[in-house]
Amino acid sequence: MRPAAEVPADALVLGVDSGGSGLRAALGPPEGMRAPAPVRSAEPVRTGERGIDAEHFIAQLLPMARELLARVGGGRITAVAIGAAGLATLGDDLRAQLPSALEEALGVRRVALAADAVTAYAGAVGDRPGAVVAAGTGLIAIGTDLTAWRRADGWGHLLGDCGGGAWIGRAGLEAVMRAHDGRDGGSKALLVRAEDLFGPVTGLPGQLYPRTDRPAVLASFAPHVAACAADDPVAEGILRDAARHIAQAAAAVCPAGDTCEVALTGGLFKLGEPLTGPLREELTERLPRAVQVTAAGDPLDGALRIAADIGADRLRLPRDPRMLTVHGEADS
Amino acid sequence: MRPAAEVPADALVLGVDSGGSGLRAALGPPEGMRAPAPVRSAEPVRTGERGIDAEHFIAQLLPMARELLARVGGGRITAVAIGAAGLATLGDDLRAQLPSALEEALGVRRVALAADAVTAYAGAVGDRPGAVVAAGTGLIAIGTDLTAWRRADGWGHLLGDCGGGAWIGRAGLEAVMRAHDGRDGGSKALLVRAEDLFGPVTGLPGQLYPRTDRPAVLASFAPHVAACAADDPVAEGILRDAARHIAQAAAAVCPAGDTCEVALTGGLFKLGEPLTGPLREELTERLPRAVQVTAAGDPLDGALRIAADIGADRLRLPRDPRMLTVHGEADS
Repeated sequence: MRPAAEVPADALVLGVDSGGSGLRAALGPPEGMRAPAPVRSAEPVRTGERGIDAEHFIAQLLPMARELLARVGGGRITAVAIGAAGLATLGDDLRAQLPSALEEALGVRRVALAADAVTAYAGAVGDRPGAVVAAGTGLIAIGTDLTAWRRADGWGHLLGDCGGGAWIGRAGLEAVMRAHDGRDGGSKALLVRAEDLFGPVTGLPGQLYPRTDRPAVLASFAPHVAACAADDPVAEGILRDAARHIAQAAAAVCPAGDTCEVALTGGLFKLGEPLTGPLREELTERLPRAVQVTAAGDPLDGALRIAADIGADRLRLPRDPRMLTVHGEADS
Repeated sequence: MRPAAEVPADALVLGVDSGGSGLRAALGPPEGMRAPAPVRSAEPVRTGERGIDAEHFIAQLLPMARELLARVGGGRITAVAIGAAGLATLGDDLRAQLPSALEEALGVRRVALAADAVTAYAGAVGDRPGAVVAAGTGLIAIGTDLTAWRRADGWGHLLGDCGGGAWIGRAGLEAVMRAHDGRDGGSKALLVRAEDLFGPVTGLPGQLYPRTDRPAVLASFAPHVAACAADDPVAEGILRDAARHIAQAAAAVCPAGDTCEVALTGGLFKLGEPLTGPLREELTERLPRAVQVTAAGDPLDGALRIAADIGADRLRLPRDPRMLTVHGEADS
């Protein structure tokens, strides 16, 4: 290990989380604790022909960084870490433009660009080997032995995201239509809930298919599946299947070893015991060496942690051309 | 039964099939045999705020009808039957405008408007009680005891269409991504096929999600699932599940009785033995009173048959405000 770099007294680090609902950013001291109030931007960063638009990203981020600095009475940002949804496949423009743009505007040389799954990992597990399942509307699992990353699922609502919010909601609505038709596999309890929410279910196709946010519409039904699980075997079976898919994704990314820390993070797990109960059982069966740990923090915490670690030359998470790049390191 | 109406010597009937790829129309004698060459329109009928656009429909249909009449050296159209996709939910404008427009333009008073599932039924089974599964990219089952219609599925690729082309292709592509990730349930054989077709599968989300014809893209992979089924247990399992869903839909619409004729119609069944083999077994198990019959004809044949039947006052299929309306009947 190289010795830790000297850290100036007024040094600060900047963490950024970029996703479908816009940017969040927070300042922290290099020890990695988050300053109390993160700031948010109103609009998601545009995606164009060259992927995520670096110019639009910078135009939103700089005023946020200046506001954060003003709130703490000034200081100097020594490192920035950005976690962005879609970075692996849509991050070329960010990787090409952001480091020099941030150096020019803020004088910061060390910049990390991470897939949002990587900042989720850093926030949940830190820099130990392990696995994280990050799930909301979608679902992705990511794991590392600190040498390389492994990823499973995260392929979207038609190709996968098995066990995520859209997956559970879609399965619930299929059971609704089965009950309406008198086909096997239907759930009367879910049919009653769907009628309360959407009106006569023959109108559901007309309400769903014209929308551009179909996965979110599907996911909005997931809490109703969870609410019915205690008394309805079809709803219970959907959550059991979801739990199995989640355990399969975790098993695919767990590093070798006698045990493997597994953290669950994201809004999906707010469904609570109807999902997390069967998930504990499925993990015990399919990945007996898993040790379930509570996620320490969220993706913005993870970005701050990575920023602090690159600022102090102590990042242990593995670099990867699409998942995690570090720019302007002391020895680069 | 009322006596059959007298049919003039030069009488002809017009059958029309309207779907996602445009209009097809054919003339026939009132006995119901199709004249050899149907004509097609280039573009699908527009759907607007009032549903399927009657004016656009008429503007396409009239030149087709005149061309057909010219080909047979003239004659008089005494009845028209139109089968249209979406008629049940989007057919108000057609029901309001088409009968008077056709009377004005062609002098025809008897007009039937049918859901495409009804013309599929009439083409496949005729006017006997029974059940039809019509499947291509999507899947719908329809059955009747000649008193009322029963319908199952046909809810689209997110809410159902279980066992149809998009369903099978989607399940196949999920197995592709599972194999890529190293998750349970993956198929190496399907992964190899998908890489041949689409390149590296990490690019699949980018190729699929921006499309507006996602169900068709998914369905395009279904023949590859069928091609792998003989040697690949995952592909075989997908087709077995599809067969079970199809049998469940058929069982939900079969009329009561000692036996029930079940016909399968549509492009899906071109997948052949890898699907129809397990389907025979699933029907035997789930619907032992089913008698599988070969579909006599397609939906355009069914439209011609309904046109001939309303022209001769002998239609036995049940009327239904959304599935099958007949306008200008002798006693109406």
